[in-house]
Amino acid sequence: MPNFQARVLVSLRPSVLDPAGEATKSAATRLGVDGVQKLRIGKSVDLSIEALNENEARQKLEILAERLLSNPVIEDWKLEIYPLLSENLK
Amino acid sequence: MPNFQARVLVSLRPSVLDPAGEATKSAATRLGVDGVQKLRIGKSVDLSIEALNENEARQKLEILAERLLSNPVIEDWKLEIYPLLSENLK
Repeated sequence: MPNFQARVLVSLRPSVLDPAGEATKSAATRLGVDGVQKLRIGKSVDLSIEALNENEARQKLEILAERLLSNPVIEDWKLEIYPLLSENLK
Repeated sequence: MPNFQARVLVSLRPSVLDPAGEATKSAATRLGVDGVQKLRIGKSVDLSIEALNENEARQKLEILAERLLSNPVIEDWKLEIYPLLSENLK
């Protein structure tokens, strides 16, 4: 079965405060790097998943993103599926 | 000064164990989603930063990625800088 590589990016909704991001932004200034206007920290989940085709992979990954990897109350997610490499097409 | 949008992806080095990722992978099976072969959890940091040009932005962001956002002993990072929108070119 083909093996799909994917990434789920999970970020806080724009209306949700990000104290860790704010602290990191302040630390950037203390480190001597000025000009940081925004800094928000999210999660990046790299997966590989077996599925019959990209459609099935997408369905599975959407379930994972929605129910396992993110908290839909405070987080948004975005799914990226990478093109199959020919060696995986078996 | 132009405002550059960027993302720093921080991931555990391949040789470093990822217990949270392993637990999440097991949880996927319990959720009824089978076929997850790998699952690694990293950070995704979205920034906007002022700089004179892309070169300066890249230099600043590399300092942040290397010294603030990642732990080089156990983590790798990758920097993505997005093309300037024309409205930011002032």
